[in-house]
Amino acid sequence: MRLSQYFMPTLKENPSEAQIVSHRLMLRAGMVRQSSAGIYSWLPLGFRVLKKIEAIVRQEQNMAGCQELLMPTIQPADLWRESGRYEDYGREMLRITDRHERDMLYGPTNEEQITDIFRQSVRSYRDLPRLLYHIQWKFRDEVRPRFGVMRGREFLMKDAYSFDLDYAGAKHSYNKFFAAYLRTFARLGLTAIPMAADTGPIGGDLSHEFIILADTGESEVHCHADYLDFEPLATEVDYDSDLEPFVTERTRLYAATDEKHDQATFEAEVPEAKRVNTRGIEVGHIFYFGSKYSEAMGATVQGPDGEAVAVEMGSYGVGVSRLVGAIIEASHDEAGIIWPESVAPFDVGIVNLKAGDEACDAACEDFQYKLGAERQVLLDDTSERAGAKFATMDLIGLPWQLVVGPRGLKSGTVELKSRASGEREELSPESALARLTS
Amino acid sequence: MRLSQYFMPTLKENPSEAQIVSHRLMLRAGMVRQSSAGIYSWLPLGFRVLKKIEAIVRQEQNMAGCQELLMPTIQPADLWRESGRYEDYGREMLRITDRHERDMLYGPTNEEQITDIFRQSVRSYRDLPRLLYHIQWKFRDEVRPRFGVMRGREFLMKDAYSFDLDYAGAKHSYNKFFAAYLRTFARLGLTAIPMAADTGPIGGDLSHEFIILADTGESEVHCHADYLDFEPLATEVDYDSDLEPFVTERTRLYAATDEKHDQATFEAEVPEAKRVNTRGIEVGHIFYFGSKYSEAMGATVQGPDGEAVAVEMGSYGVGVSRLVGAIIEASHDEAGIIWPESVAPFDVGIVNLKAGDEACDAACEDFQYKLGAERQVLLDDTSERAGAKFATMDLIGLPWQLVVGPRGLKSGTVELKSRASGEREELSPESALARLTS
Repeated sequence: MRLSQYFMPTLKENPSEAQIVSHRLMLRAGMVRQSSAGIYSWLPLGFRVLKKIEAIVRQEQNMAGCQELLMPTIQPADLWRESGRYEDYGREMLRITDRHERDMLYGPTNEEQITDIFRQSVRSYRDLPRLLYHIQWKFRDEVRPRFGVMRGREFLMKDAYSFDLDYAGAKHSYNKFFAAYLRTFARLGLTAIPMAADTGPIGGDLSHEFIILADTGESEVHCHADYLDFEPLATEVDYDSDLEPFVTERTRLYAATDEKHDQATFEAEVPEAKRVNTRGIEVGHIFYFGSKYSEAMGATVQGPDGEAVAVEMGSYGVGVSRLVGAIIEASHDEAGIIWPESVAPFDVGIVNLKAGDEACDAACEDFQYKLGAERQVLLDDTSERAGAKFATMDLIGLPWQLVVGPRGLKSGTVELKSRASGEREELSPESALARLTS
Repeated sequence: MRLSQYFMPTLKENPSEAQIVSHRLMLRAGMVRQSSAGIYSWLPLGFRVLKKIEAIVRQEQNMAGCQELLMPTIQPADLWRESGRYEDYGREMLRITDRHERDMLYGPTNEEQITDIFRQSVRSYRDLPRLLYHIQWKFRDEVRPRFGVMRGREFLMKDAYSFDLDYAGAKHSYNKFFAAYLRTFARLGLTAIPMAADTGPIGGDLSHEFIILADTGESEVHCHADYLDFEPLATEVDYDSDLEPFVTERTRLYAATDEKHDQATFEAEVPEAKRVNTRGIEVGHIFYFGSKYSEAMGATVQGPDGEAVAVEMGSYGVGVSRLVGAIIEASHDEAGIIWPESVAPFDVGIVNLKAGDEACDAACEDFQYKLGAERQVLLDDTSERAGAKFATMDLIGLPWQLVVGPRGLKSGTVELKSRASGEREELSPESALARLTS
């Protein structure tokens, strides 16, 4: 892609409405524009990142044996009356009346809808387990939307649901998502800590929030410092095996959200020097809720003994659009965003220091062509001055910058810069190409 | 994918609510389930088709130089007050009031929103043309939703918008979309005829609907019979070249929607034996509307002479979710759907005639493994009887059926059936494999 033709309206100044760094940088890099409070348009650069995150989330759900479908955004209120949540949900639910005066709503989540689909179709315990997910826009009418896409009103979420015959099955499904989430966040370059979370009236301990530590996080969290040293590496997982040891090992050290936090246990289990009290951003949540919805909505299957059994369910969410902001909160510097390679909107930014110069143009186009087979390339072919070009490349945070100038070309070199480390190298064009391709 | 584990709830009976064949077949094949009137959940099989269509639409938009972004579903009413359409749109617009009593709406289309994004960001004629699109769910509160996903209330649409300095530029953009649409529909296996359509108060002749002929279509259309003989082939297009001859050639013969139809011209231009009066399904619409929105909303750029110019715009829509139904209307038989290869949910269905038989199971798994690298495979490993398995395979319409039975295996053969032609061949496993891989 040529920058001269790319719709990437960057801003030089910090927008005054943005309180946190990810919101500022997303506006400045031309990734999003606000449509109304808490509602954003994703411009091409931001859209590319959103899609890359979505693709990783999808791959990991599929690998865990979860099947993708797509439920609509607008749901009938009657479904929520069945579960009792229509009245309970409060003003965050966007309630809508259609032209025939029917009560509808913009789904803030999909437990009722998936339970309805399940009960229409599944009859026998032989068809269990079922793991189903979708990636769809949701709406929560936050009273004070803020922090850009981190706490928007219209947001993209992956929500999955598990259906099992009994608690043991439900727990195995829960463990699958636990493992899939650790893999997902690791692939996104994030150290996400699974923290014991509130289970409310359901009870038990099958609720974990996956939290990224950040001062701008909205919730207080408490954990063992060793979690911070875990490298984000996507471990191989055999989803057919017993995952209990995997989960136990990864929840051995203390980590809890504020609602679940117990100071006495924290002090007993964690040496003082290792106690971390900080804030965190929730990027995922897994939750077992038994037969709460299946009983209320009559989602039963015929068990092995012929009796009807209300299925055991769980739900599993990842905030896809929120992750764009969360990754930036975790990975930026003074100059701008530092994208992990897995979600960068482009892999390489080529900076043509003298657009219009025959040698520079030819070299840049040659790079673009040769890299293009393997790498996604953004070529800055504009007539901006060098300083502005460097600033834009640092701002948008592509992993590699390849700087092509007339002086370098004469001596047979180009400059390759790693955005993350800041390291620069003078290389021959051939070596630069070799470095950037496999 | 193993059918025993796949969430594909087929129906044996024709659902009474479905009036047209695509709706019937989509329900029977377990592709969709109705959530409420005109609103559907896409189950895994239907979702796969939807995504494949979306991917082809996206590729062709990108090839035409159009850049993808994503606007939200919920828009502020104020934008539509600027254009004057908030009052005009009528009851098909789903109007919403949020918790702060602000007027919002679920976007039925996005001219206002994209114009707002454009005017915030683009200042100079040097940044033109701009071609931008998104693929997003829309809502139109149809008074009588019917025909399944063909005329739903919540539907997925690709809508693109062009911004040019002058009419000549706008026309060139229009022609790009004309060509991209012909390529798109051809790749979907459809003979879509570009028909002159109403331009309303805008005037001129830059409005075409792309129509598939079908008795179940909702609009009357009139065209030269020769259009029906055109093979759906995706022609190579050089989008930088003058596309006027391309468009002229493909609009030479008479073809018009009812609103634009002129009987006298029809009779003068088309010999009687070649006159087709029938019904059609609109799957795409391209439309030039000049400065209608840019003037109302102040979307101007600085022209070459320094004066502010209201940009010339067009909009270009493809009904992505509707296309799933339209393709089925165009391609089915008594037994079920016949998917074109490009959008089939799986490429090959393997029928294990005797699940549990060691040789059959081993052969099927071997096929699944070997085909899996290149082809998407659905393996019927259930214990249904053979007749039911054949009926299901015909119903869901995968291009190839590979039938593996104990008798055939003993004599060293399997059966390969083409869903489209109905032809069956006895082949050795190796030859079948060779036939299905490149």
